[in-house]
Amino acid sequence: MRDAQATRRRVLDAAAAEFAAHGIAGARVDRIAAAAKVNKAQMYAYYGSKDGLFDAVFSEQLAGIVNSVPLDAEDLPGYAVALYDEYLARPELIRLATWARLERTPTGDLLAEFVGHDTSKLESITAAQAAGHIDPALDPRDVYALVTAVSMTWSPASVLVAAARDDDTAEHDHRRRLLADIVGRMFRAG
Amino acid sequence: MRDAQATRRRVLDAAAAEFAAHGIAGARVDRIAAAAKVNKAQMYAYYGSKDGLFDAVFSEQLAGIVNSVPLDAEDLPGYAVALYDEYLARPELIRLATWARLERTPTGDLLAEFVGHDTSKLESITAAQAAGHIDPALDPRDVYALVTAVSMTWSPASVLVAAARDDDTAEHDHRRRLLADIVGRMFRAG
Repeated sequence: MRDAQATRRRVLDAAAAEFAAHGIAGARVDRIAAAAKVNKAQMYAYYGSKDGLFDAVFSEQLAGIVNSVPLDAEDLPGYAVALYDEYLARPELIRLATWARLERTPTGDLLAEFVGHDTSKLESITAAQAAGHIDPALDPRDVYALVTAVSMTWSPASVLVAAARDDDTAEHDHRRRLLADIVGRMFRAG
Repeated sequence: MRDAQATRRRVLDAAAAEFAAHGIAGARVDRIAAAAKVNKAQMYAYYGSKDGLFDAVFSEQLAGIVNSVPLDAEDLPGYAVALYDEYLARPELIRLATWARLERTPTGDLLAEFVGHDTSKLESITAAQAAGHIDPALDPRDVYALVTAVSMTWSPASVLVAAARDDDTAEHDHRRRLLADIVGRMFRAG
């Protein structure tokens, strides 16, 4: 039983690295199996297909970022800065999400299957609007979409400059201050 | 001569569609040749390799958006709205850029080879700062990066909701008004 859990853990970790690097079509199940030291038959027994394995990886990564970077809407500037740092430390989720967008879901809600993924975020935004921290004229879903987009200015999916861990500390600090300042301006009440 | 130009045009159009749909690794040169009605030897003579063909397509698409959506920094809200409409009408550029980011350039400047691609944009921003339209405390490169990121909130690379042409007109209009409003707040002087 503990063995099976350890095996699944190795598969999910190897698959996250493989899918983040190569996307869904580009990922090789053979490489994942070799990296996780399992046989392919066992992997298929657990996850059904390469797509099923991607779903399991993406779902776990998504839950991970919700837990490691909770949205506290009383401090949206701080949330944007925490996302900047999270993308830098763990670029995998943004890469997985972007592959899924390009390869699977060209338009519409990328996270439609993850019902409720944003419920607590939207509730937090609504409460912060009532408390005067965020312009109450804005739709909470729009606030969430806009703060997500702006926080990705230098993300691993940026179409201009993507931050690298070995960029100068002063450059990272400049971007953090700038994000905090701009997010403050975007949503301020009145 | 005119034939050669027409052939290159067909190749670039077929390649843009193929790369936008499948990315660089996923694109099939056979499909591009068949769609453009040329033989592969001729394509390789023109573009050298699949990567060379991608470079030619990406470069042309990038020049296209600079011409069709010029950045007038005296009206950054209008620029963001024009980008929203451009992504909706022609999702190819954002998809090509995002594939290039994921497949080729995980960090750093995605457009490093396109020296000067942003020169006129940065000059326009600097002039608009001097004229009091944009906060002069901001670095023009940061203004450009931030307005690009926020304009992509519902783009074909969004990790939440990507706009679709058949979304309700009221929804498109709501997003346009919201982008204009938020971009105004982001960069306003004083």
